[in-house]
Amino acid sequence: MMHILVSNDDGYQAPGILALFDALSKMADVTVVAPERDRSGASNSLTLDYPLRVHEVGERRYRVEGTPTDCVHLAITGLLREEPDMVVSGINAGANMGDDVLYSGTVAAATEGRFLGLPAIAISLNSFAPRHLASGARVARQIVERLSRDPLPSDTILNINVPDLPWEEIQGWEATRLGRRHRAEPVVRGEDPRGRPIYWIGPPGNEEDAGPGTDFYAVRNGFVSVTPIQVDLTRYTALDQVAGWVTGLGRPAEEGG
Amino acid sequence: MMHILVSNDDGYQAPGILALFDALSKMADVTVVAPERDRSGASNSLTLDYPLRVHEVGERRYRVEGTPTDCVHLAITGLLREEPDMVVSGINAGANMGDDVLYSGTVAAATEGRFLGLPAIAISLNSFAPRHLASGARVARQIVERLSRDPLPSDTILNINVPDLPWEEIQGWEATRLGRRHRAEPVVRGEDPRGRPIYWIGPPGNEEDAGPGTDFYAVRNGFVSVTPIQVDLTRYTALDQVAGWVTGLGRPAEEGG
Amino acid sequence: MMHILVSNDDGYQAPGILALFDALSKMADVTVVAPERDRSGASNSLTLDYPLRVHEVGERRYRVEGTPTDCVHLAITGLLREEPDMVVSGINAGANMGDDVLYSGTVAAATEGRFLGLPAIAISLNSFAPRHLASGARVARQIVERLSRDPLPSDTILNINVPDLPWEEIQGWEATRLGRRHRAEPVVRGEDPRGRPIYWIGPPGNEEDAGPGTDFYAVRNGFVSVTPIQVDLTRYTALDQVAGWVTGLGRPAEEGG
Amino acid sequence: MMHILVSNDDGYQAPGILALFDALSKMADVTVVAPERDRSGASNSLTLDYPLRVHEVGERRYRVEGTPTDCVHLAITGLLREEPDMVVSGINAGANMGDDVLYSGTVAAATEGRFLGLPAIAISLNSFAPRHLASGARVARQIVERLSRDPLPSDTILNINVPDLPWEEIQGWEATRLGRRHRAEPVVRGEDPRGRPIYWIGPPGNEEDAGPGTDFYAVRNGFVSVTPIQVDLTRYTALDQVAGWVTGLGRPAEEGG
Repeated sequence: MMHILVSNDDGYQAPGILALFDALSKMADVTVVAPERDRSGASNSLTLDYPLRVHEVGERRYRVEGTPTDCVHLAITGLLREEPDMVVSGINAGANMGDDVLYSGTVAAATEGRFLGLPAIAISLNSFAPRHLASGARVARQIVERLSRDPLPSDTILNINVPDLPWEEIQGWEATRLGRRHRAEPVVRGEDPRGRPIYWIGPPGNEEDAGPGTDFYAVRNGFVSVTPIQVDLTRYTALDQVAGWVTGLGRPAEEGG
Repeated sequence: MMHILVSNDDGYQAPGILALFDALSKMADVTVVAPERDRSGASNSLTLDYPLRVHEVGERRYRVEGTPTDCVHLAITGLLREEPDMVVSGINAGANMGDDVLYSGTVAAATEGRFLGLPAIAISLNSFAPRHLASGARVARQIVERLSRDPLPSDTILNINVPDLPWEEIQGWEATRLGRRHRAEPVVRGEDPRGRPIYWIGPPGNEEDAGPGTDFYAVRNGFVSVTPIQVDLTRYTALDQVAGWVTGLGRPAEEGG
Repeated sequence: MMHILVSNDDGYQAPGILALFDALSKMADVTVVAPERDRSGASNSLTLDYPLRVHEVGERRYRVEGTPTDCVHLAITGLLREEPDMVVSGINAGANMGDDVLYSGTVAAATEGRFLGLPAIAISLNSFAPRHLASGARVARQIVERLSRDPLPSDTILNINVPDLPWEEIQGWEATRLGRRHRAEPVVRGEDPRGRPIYWIGPPGNEEDAGPGTDFYAVRNGFVSVTPIQVDLTRYTALDQVAGWVTGLGRPAEEGG
Repeated sequence: MMHILVSNDDGYQAPGILALFDALSKMADVTVVAPERDRSGASNSLTLDYPLRVHEVGERRYRVEGTPTDCVHLAITGLLREEPDMVVSGINAGANMGDDVLYSGTVAAATEGRFLGLPAIAISLNSFAPRHLASGARVARQIVERLSRDPLPSDTILNINVPDLPWEEIQGWEATRLGRRHRAEPVVRGEDPRGRPIYWIGPPGNEEDAGPGTDFYAVRNGFVSVTPIQVDLTRYTALDQVAGWVTGLGRPAEEGG
């Protein structure tokens, strides 16, 4: 039987991960290793300076005092006796599209599962207060079923965003690229009750590139957006230009100390 | 005069950021906005649930109780009266190459500066206890000088790794792609003094793709590695394959609830 | 009906607080406001620099991203619509006796309830892995019952330690003073997997004053120890001596700048 | 030469601890072990679940990623080669009087030094933005000088509050008891920029017992307040009453399971 590792960034008790667990338990052995509390915005952060504590909260269910990346990292480097076949992360309360993916702990958890035998999946619902977790759960199940019959390369990472709609109102599936936002809205200045300044990170910027082909566009039109994600951050299209540009810098060894 | 924002992930008092500040102050107005303490491994994590506190620790020098990404985000969305022209992040104690870039707070700080008028730069020295900060500082100065005369597109992000060598032993510059590591070493299990289990994240995996053309290779051979980084995580080369694959999933609206 | 606020320092899901909730719910309206995670050792620490977040996890059950003191402070200064009549904190996994009380979050939560109409109670079981939570729960119920019939002054704080024994093996109740320990054992030096030094706080010191009349003695002999606690930290017995001593310091205003 | 351990809760770089260091260095060997950042409100909290990291930031100057209590605990249980003779904590920006002492990290740091050969001292200035650190420093020096000539018992803890006045305007010294406040002001409800509720701990309550003899009264009238503090939290005056009260509870062993 397939062995799926489930994680998220909303914490091990979030309704989204419970729905995901239930959906996948019908078709696979599922182990949950998830943060003990909400770690939205954690990106790929990894705890290097302190040890991690792991608590078993039920059969094959662990909470970790750490980030989503810590959770998946631990799970696949020795915490679990049997290596999982794949990671499914989510179901996140709130979409992870466009530039927001950079900051997402949900997608980071999937990314950390890139070394396993089957693709890694991140699933998010397009609402901070989702009403249709069942649609997200159904997406998870269909994706996993299809992967077991018709696999994609093992290093594939799929970032899936689901409209927060009843299943029958979802229009279909679409392979997409990530859209892009404008710069974030200004920082929100405030004061604490003692009169000292505080700063809140402002809301994300407006959509800049959200036309056909993007994840923004697909979800806005009722489609499940499926974006292949890469781990290699090299901007290959700029390599030649940069190669030319650096020749203008001169050789340090020649010019002297 | 150019206005450069300097940040890092080792904290505002780390020797690397002080060396960077000194080097760039000779040629530009420099503002430092950096974390109050070591935040290595923070990746692009962003503080969404709590307000941030900013402390002015000197003229144009701020420490923030937050992540590297928080620092640059605040700085360019309203903390500073005048928008900087570019971000330079570092000089990090320790290389940021290959997959490690995913977890790097140094590179994340540069990434967050992608909306400014000039490219964003991350600079790391290839040693956890650098002896040749002067080489890193010289690299910073030369890169910034060249960018001011011969600019690259404003959304360029350069990830620069410098061998920890005296300047005259550095062999030159090389435009590189990121290498790739094998999976990380196993988690390190231990016990605290009360006999309870703890887990440390294990060391990074060995190099898997570290041949000619990679950052690993360049630095190992004494070159300054310059890698263009992208923010768009779409894996374009897999888009067609995924587009085909999702057609096999069937239309939700048709199949019913 | 009496309204009891229940809190602890082991976290809102700890078995001890669940047992306490069940026991008291039979005789009173119970509201739980407790930390979202283990905060043992938190003492009376109060979160002044950041706002607190409160999550309703069930009917009259709240978890707080904060310390035990934060929880009770919030609860009695406005979070709850109806002011509770008393606070019961626990059931802690591990005794809180002697000097250890200084560091205890369990006792701190009770202390923060000192302004309410009925005494505040802290209950701890003498084992880090309690087997007889039922004994602790029974103690809680009997104490609250007796207080409702035969009240103690409203500013009383009772620190109760229960042997981890079956109810029928408990020898009785004893009013006690706090014992005292020798200085703590040495710090435990270690290394993280990267070879950098780490330090663990050592175990508490041995008992120095643990004879008849102390909490240590009572619990060791199978009795429930009941210690009245004070909030006024003035050492009255030293006031005269200090008053004499400070006269030797001379008047600043006379001696000049 | 006397060896004094200096700590605080405002962080190792706070102006108050720097002034204290300078003042005491003229008369003793001084070692600083202090938190790396502001830990006001930390009370006696102790880090039990994670290791501590210590960074040497100068000769005999250490910053610790921990609480004030952690700092002093480490220092006297093995971090320092030579045991200090006494602890002086401060100079805190803001008074620590009355009930506030319960929450104070400054006083907690002194309390943790109760096992050393000479008394432990906590010094606070009565202003969040002190203008007369020199007065606090002078108090520290005079107190230590007098203790070395005319010692108090080694387990004495003195909590000293200094008016924020020029030295020549200070009226003298007074041995005091702690005053008492009314219950704290209500919690301050707010919203974050996303519309989610947040709660700030409200300001301390008004003074309830602030008449002659209290620390509040002394400082308000321009005197340096010196309060002896005790570690034994037993409320001895209530012991008889509680002893009588518990007899009404019946013997568990008799009444059965």
